[in-house]
Amino acid sequence: MTYPSSTERIHGVLSPVVTPFDRELRPDGERLVKHCRWLLEQGVGLAVFGTNSEANSMSVAEKIALLDTLVAAGIPPTRMMPGTAACAFPDTVELTRHAVQLGCAGVLMLPPFYYKGVSDEGLFRSYAEVIERVGDNRLRIYLYHIPPVAQVPISLPLIERLLKAYPSTIAGIKDSSGDWANTSAMLEQFQPHGLDVFAGSEAFLLRTLRGGGVGCITAAANVNPGPIAQLARSWQQPDADAQQAALNDVRAIFQQFPMIPALKAAIAHYSDDPAWATVRPPLVELDDAQRTALAQALHAADFAMPGLAA
Amino acid sequence: MTYPSSTERIHGVLSPVVTPFDRELRPDGERLVKHCRWLLEQGVGLAVFGTNSEANSMSVAEKIALLDTLVAAGIPPTRMMPGTAACAFPDTVELTRHAVQLGCAGVLMLPPFYYKGVSDEGLFRSYAEVIERVGDNRLRIYLYHIPPVAQVPISLPLIERLLKAYPSTIAGIKDSSGDWANTSAMLEQFQPHGLDVFAGSEAFLLRTLRGGGVGCITAAANVNPGPIAQLARSWQQPDADAQQAALNDVRAIFQQFPMIPALKAAIAHYSDDPAWATVRPPLVELDDAQRTALAQALHAADFAMPGLAA
Repeated sequence: MTYPSSTERIHGVLSPVVTPFDRELRPDGERLVKHCRWLLEQGVGLAVFGTNSEANSMSVAEKIALLDTLVAAGIPPTRMMPGTAACAFPDTVELTRHAVQLGCAGVLMLPPFYYKGVSDEGLFRSYAEVIERVGDNRLRIYLYHIPPVAQVPISLPLIERLLKAYPSTIAGIKDSSGDWANTSAMLEQFQPHGLDVFAGSEAFLLRTLRGGGVGCITAAANVNPGPIAQLARSWQQPDADAQQAALNDVRAIFQQFPMIPALKAAIAHYSDDPAWATVRPPLVELDDAQRTALAQALHAADFAMPGLAA
Repeated sequence: MTYPSSTERIHGVLSPVVTPFDRELRPDGERLVKHCRWLLEQGVGLAVFGTNSEANSMSVAEKIALLDTLVAAGIPPTRMMPGTAACAFPDTVELTRHAVQLGCAGVLMLPPFYYKGVSDEGLFRSYAEVIERVGDNRLRIYLYHIPPVAQVPISLPLIERLLKAYPSTIAGIKDSSGDWANTSAMLEQFQPHGLDVFAGSEAFLLRTLRGGGVGCITAAANVNPGPIAQLARSWQQPDADAQQAALNDVRAIFQQFPMIPALKAAIAHYSDDPAWATVRPPLVELDDAQRTALAQALHAADFAMPGLAA
């Protein structure tokens, strides 16, 4: 396997890696390393500490410890784009600085998300404060637009202003709006100026690549990484639409359940490791009926997680 | 001035104390102590680290340091109800434990607010996890229901379940829904069972007290504490409705501006201390025109902040 050199930007498919917890709800570094190795083998990069990683249910200290564990285990930081944002900029600065010092390819950065209805000026200052305080020209920020969860959007004018002020730092964006018109506008306005656009779901992968974007960062890449990465490699082939349709079918199964517990339940099931099902509150693991229904639907669809060690 | 003994519950009017920051955006403990002293002299308690305190723009370490500064300066912890919640329970546990150990009267606790659409079961587990891990029977939790900001509500069934499971710990609630029907339901269903109901705004103070509630926790108590505390003391007097109307008039002036920057601008203006105007991003301080308009409106209404030292 070859990885891009540190001067190349990360692209393709990334997984917001789900975080395993032990019975005491402590992050389980060993299981995380194992899952990351499998994801890399399947051809996807590692957006650890994304929304689907329950990142916002972990403290900065816990995330720093996990990042150190991954790097110590030999997971290449050039394949990692950790989420580093918190509501308070000192927290964001601390974790971002650590990720940069470890050599991570980039960081995925939510806007501060507690205060609602804030201005673009305030959000610009939030990002600027972090960039200035980290003060490292290796920093590559991928903006994270996910209004259904954060409830604080990253508007097109804000992107434009950030890109103008920090052209070498603002490297890309993940659009989890679920609104293709918005992704399309980003692709037209900013991709030609060096802002790498990632779809927030593999459901938009083919359209994003056809529109000049660079890939997707998607929950489903935790469970279906190979086929998603395959489409990213072969999107110019004649069977691309058929590949996209097959990805959509798998996604539709998971979407019948709460996503994060369902991802973990599938990993628990296919690796025969029930500990994987654990989530931190406020999330709740699937109940028995949901677990059974998910497994049945996946088996009926001949779904597999090849190479996932028991 | 007398304060309730530690066996009495805190009640009346509390201020979500605005947090001063210096030019480097560091929390300014000295100015905070001074403001807290003035608030206590005016007869209001201290809900430091509330929404209006920009609490969610500060790290846990910054909040612990400020709490220590306040107590070291002689501010009585029995008059304090710090906000201690974060998205991640380890953060909430750390700050809550510290507040309990310092002898704070209680803590104001948001639900975890990043993940949206979570279940009451998940929120129950979130609170239970914190209560069990803090493991101190001195802990008094005031639930913080503020759906316009947190976007994660605390439902009536959730309150009932928490109160049943932890009757001596779940001490009260702040209702910042702005929905009187909801406050009224809390007053009817839970106040008789020992859940102290605080209105989330002085606009509902009189109605809350008449309905059996214990007071309010309100942004405006940062700037208009004396008259709000006066109504809480004299709500059974004939002039109570007139007092409420006068409070509403002052509130209406502040509501023409972004609330937190306006509170700070007023303190800066009346104490002749421009440093008070500083906010952390994503908030933005009032601009010159807004500042002038606010000052003019307050002077036209004969508004004063008596005893606020220059």
